This record gives sequence, C-alpha cells and structure tokens, in this order.
Amino acid sequence: MNTLYSYTAGFLDADGSIYVRLKPNSTYNYDYQVSPSVVFFQNSKSKQGLQLLQSRLKMGYLRERNDKIIEYTIGDQSSIISLLQKIIPFLIFKKQQAELMLKILSLKKTITTAKQFVQLAKLIDIFGDLNYSTKRKINAQMVRNHLLQKGILTP
Amino acid sequence: MNTLYSYTAGFLDADGSIYVRLKPNSTYNYDYQVSPSVVFFQNSKSKQGLQLLQSRLKMGYLRERNDKIIEYTIGDQSSIISLLQKIIPFLIFKKQQAELMLKILSLKKTITTAKQFVQLAKLIDIFGDLNYSTKRKINAQMVRNHLLQKGILTP
Repeated sequence: MNTLYSYTAGFLDADGSIYVRLKPNSTYNYDYQVSPSVVFFQNSKSKQGLQLLQSRLKMGYLRERNDKIIEYTIGDQSSIISLLQKIIPFLIFKKQQAELMLKILSLKKTITTAKQFVQLAKLIDIFGDLNYSTKRKINAQMVRNHLLQKGILTP
Repeated sequence: MNTLYSYTAGFLDADGSIYVRLKPNSTYNYDYQVSPSVVFFQNSKSKQGLQLLQSRLKMGYLRERNDKIIEYTIGDQSSIISLLQKIIPFLIFKKQQAELMLKILSLKKTITTAKQFVQLAKLIDIFGDLNYSTKRKINAQMVRNHLLQKGILTP
C-alpha cells in the first residue's frame, strides 16, 4: 500500500496541485466557502491511466476540459485529509502545501468567530505564494473588509 | 527503497519521458548512434526538488533550458536499465515505453549485422507512436535506405 501512496506523491509532485480557494457563498456563516482541492492534470490521451489511479485511490472524480486536459480532482475534505496524511512522508516538492492544507482543514473545524475566520483566510493566502499563483481572486484582506462592512467583524 | 522507486514511477508517469533516438554518427558501426533517454521535466522553480531526486537516485544530470524548464536527464545506458527495472512494477502510464526501452537496449548488445540494426531501428520507431511524437527525425526506413546506399546492407 505504501508504494501506491509514494507513487501518488511522485505523481502529485510532478504534475499536480494542492490548493485552497475562498468562494463567495452567502449560505455559509462568514459568506465565504473554504474550498480545498487536490488535482492531478494530464493530457486526455492519458485518461485510462488517471482512471486506474482513481480506482486505486478510491476517491475523487475525472473531468475533461475543453482544452483536452483531464483533471482528476479530489475535493472532498475527508478524502483530502486521508490522502495527504498518507503521501506527506513521500512528497518532495509539495510537502509545504500538503502540511498547510492539513493545518487549514484542521483549524477550519474550530472556527467560532469572524476574527478567527479572517485568520484562516490569511493562512489560505499563503497558498498563493507557495504555488506561485497569480490568479487568486479572494484574499484575507477582502474577506476582512467584507465582514467589517457587514458588521459581522468588529475592528 | 521501494518507495523511492514507486515515487519515481509516479513522477515519470506524470511528467517524464522515456524515449530512444537515432543520431547520425559516422564513428558508429552502422552510421547511427542509438541514444536512449529517461527525462523528467519541471519548471525551474522546482530545481531544488529535482536536485534532491537526483541525489536519491544517484544518476543523471540537470540542465536548465532557455525557456525556464529544467530537464533531469538519465542518458547512461546502464543507469537507465537499472532504474527502469526497479520502477516498471509501479508504472501505470509508461510501462509499455519502459518495457520497449529494456528490449531495445538488450537487443542492441546482440547486433552483428546491418539487417539486425534495421530491425532494431524498427523497434525504435514504435516509440514515436507510444509517445505520440511528431518530431521524430530519423526512422528505420531512412536507416535502411542509408545502409543500402552505402552498400553496408544488401537488399
């Protein structure tokens, strides 16, 4: 079983992504949904291989994009925690992201105030730096301003 | 140790390449050099990780291309054989390429006639299909024509 998880660590290090996004969602306590993902990318020619990996890991789903890239996404929180805990010992490139993800998902469960939620959003900001992301839309500053404006957070 | 090789299999499956090229080289018996490679590609931001992988596998060399891609190449024949034998059990996507590579490198040692060399070149052609390569320059037909023209091969 260890070789499945070390294989997956190598695959994720080479061509995968670990990240958390904040999505506007007014049905959530603080108007933003914390959306974690572990994604593997491949050319659609490699669909069969990804399907096999999916069947071995027993989690996530495949989606074919219009640009012929297949995304194998694990978005379910408990699957992400279970997978990352098993592959962290083998990760070389993305160990920091995996550890940060586990920290965020664990902290998320303890949140009871808007102030704590802004702290969580600050941790999520760090992903942008670790992943060299330039596309991050919603950051902690925006969450803070929004919550202040709505009077959910007090300065 | 198995987890290093299953990790490497995952890494190679996701973002690596196994291939053999024929290079014109008149110092070789049949005017072509059989040049095998196992290559891992990464953005140059991931240089440290590739260096770590290299130090664990104890083979190959890193090269930074002008387009900010780092190539970690294993071109030495005995290193390739040793690595592929260890990772083949774990490969999902590139098992066929790895098996073909081992077949070619083993057959290569037994070549004593131009006819056998053309047969080897035909096996090398298969890589083009397996890798969906459109850049292959020298194929078995060209080798055959060249050897016929030089009178090394008789029809």
